Amino acid sequence: MPQTKPKLLMIVPVKWAGLAGSALGSVEVVVEGKDAYDPAEIDYVLSFRPPPGLLARLPNLKAAFSLGAGVDGFLCDPTYPMPVPLVRFVDRTLSAEMAQYLLLQALIHHRMQRFFDQCQAEGQWRQRVLERRTEETHVGFLGLGEIGSFTAGHFVELGFPVRSWTRQRKAVPGVTSFAGAEELTPFLSRCDILICLLSLTRQTTGILNAKTFAALPQGALVINVARGGHLIETDLIAALDSGHLAGAVLDVFEHEPLAQDNPLWRHAKVTVTPHVAAISQPAVVLAYVRDGIAAFERGEQPATVVDVNTAY
Amino acid sequence: MPQTKPKLLMIVPVKWAGLAGSALGSVEVVVEGKDAYDPAEIDYVLSFRPPPGLLARLPNLKAAFSLGAGVDGFLCDPTYPMPVPLVRFVDRTLSAEMAQYLLLQALIHHRMQRFFDQCQAEGQWRQRVLERRTEETHVGFLGLGEIGSFTAGHFVELGFPVRSWTRQRKAVPGVTSFAGAEELTPFLSRCDILICLLSLTRQTTGILNAKTFAALPQGALVINVARGGHLIETDLIAALDSGHLAGAVLDVFEHEPLAQDNPLWRHAKVTVTPHVAAISQPAVVLAYVRDGIAAFERGEQPATVVDVNTAY
Repeated sequence: MPQTKPKLLMIVPVKWAGLAGSALGSVEVVVEGKDAYDPAEIDYVLSFRPPPGLLARLPNLKAAFSLGAGVDGFLCDPTYPMPVPLVRFVDRTLSAEMAQYLLLQALIHHRMQRFFDQCQAEGQWRQRVLERRTEETHVGFLGLGEIGSFTAGHFVELGFPVRSWTRQRKAVPGVTSFAGAEELTPFLSRCDILICLLSLTRQTTGILNAKTFAALPQGALVINVARGGHLIETDLIAALDSGHLAGAVLDVFEHEPLAQDNPLWRHAKVTVTPHVAAISQPAVVLAYVRDGIAAFERGEQPATVVDVNTAY
Repeated sequence: MPQTKPKLLMIVPVKWAGLAGSALGSVEVVVEGKDAYDPAEIDYVLSFRPPPGLLARLPNLKAAFSLGAGVDGFLCDPTYPMPVPLVRFVDRTLSAEMAQYLLLQALIHHRMQRFFDQCQAEGQWRQRVLERRTEETHVGFLGLGEIGSFTAGHFVELGFPVRSWTRQRKAVPGVTSFAGAEELTPFLSRCDILICLLSLTRQTTGILNAKTFAALPQGALVINVARGGHLIETDLIAALDSGHLAGAVLDVFEHEPLAQDNPLWRHAKVTVTPHVAAISQPAVVLAYVRDGIAAFERGEQPATVVDVNTAY
């Protein structure tokens, strides 16, 4: 009896599809929208946000792989075939890219780079000490998974006091842990720089809202690199305009690309980047899918299978 | 016989003088330009760049303390009283501040923040992958002392290949060591980001020159946070204008403040900051001076006494 290759359905942007052949070895690949296939033959899926209902029509699906660290693009589909394991992409290169982005944005603010840019534009030599000393600038992480822990370590090493808020208490060296709903406000009360790295779930949707902003200290900076759904945009703009928040850095949005007429583009206190904080590298993702499929085929589970009930 | 307090002469900006009383405990302080004193009574000096000849007129000077990590402000005085120990200020808070600045400036370049700023100004959503992947972006340190080693560790952790050039070979984890004059060109040949942290000595004056720039790969970024005397400004501008270098970040200058008519202010590829990369904190400096004086008074030498022949 000939051995059948496992079959992977890719539901991905066009630029990814061409890479499949070389990197996936003994896996047969079909590309949604390009190749014809029999739904009953599909063993695995790779996607970021599959069209709702599509996965439910694959009767023999063994597992689904996410192109990113988040899986909300799968779980927002009410027909997601629940018993099917869902695997997150967790990788050191992705953590390093995110840490670079977060250090960059936090340091632009902390080291007053926009002020010095303005001085240069005016040809003015204006020495100025930091508005807030490093050891008095508290950096807070909403969510502290792989990426958050890695990034938090850099902030600790650079002299910042660091705190985190998570569901369960976490023990990360140098990071003060706050946990659960009742500790959210005490956590926020000293976050001079608030970084959102949460998964998007029913509990965390809209968590960056007027009440959260009001609980932050005067002059705080908010950075959202998680999902647009975490943020209530109108609440953010109100908190910036009132002078309570000093600024915001947004890499993710409810609707992407961000609409041309969205006021965030032109707000003087807002930095907008086009979802580039951490871009999964095709070669690395494909290796993770190849190894993950091999694990399932051996009857094992990859370490990054998500608990679909909590989305963690 | 009453015990005499050691006497410290501060030759410092006005803002520092007021702090002396409380922080220096059993040391008697006089401030140059403010207090009258007998030169024969001065045991110690604290300064960044004492007026040439002043130290030579203090017959009983036991040691001189630098306000910063560099001591070129003392050694450029040909009358520096050579047998007198000279002590550098080395401190974790100073290393952390410098690391913040260098990460910030390198990441603005690496993560194309100026491009994304421009996209935001135009209201354009333009996703773009990095011009050069992190693992292919080599960061090179000219000089690798306390500050350089600390900073290099962050770049290593963030996924950059890191190399250093020093007088003697150095063993720092993750950093490829080049040493001596004959290894300068091989070192430079792969520095996509070149960071100058050298002491200013006869050997290193003007080291950032046309020959050095020509040895760098096409599209390199040069960051100078050491001393203005390391850089030949006209050579830099030529290398930027030819298109060979992608940019330069300068925090130090031959003449500070930088003259209003200096073309560096307005060069599109140059970032100018007003010598703010790492500012010594008065309270921390004064503790270092207090502890250093105590060491000398016990007949010991602080660990950061400089070899005045090599300025290291």
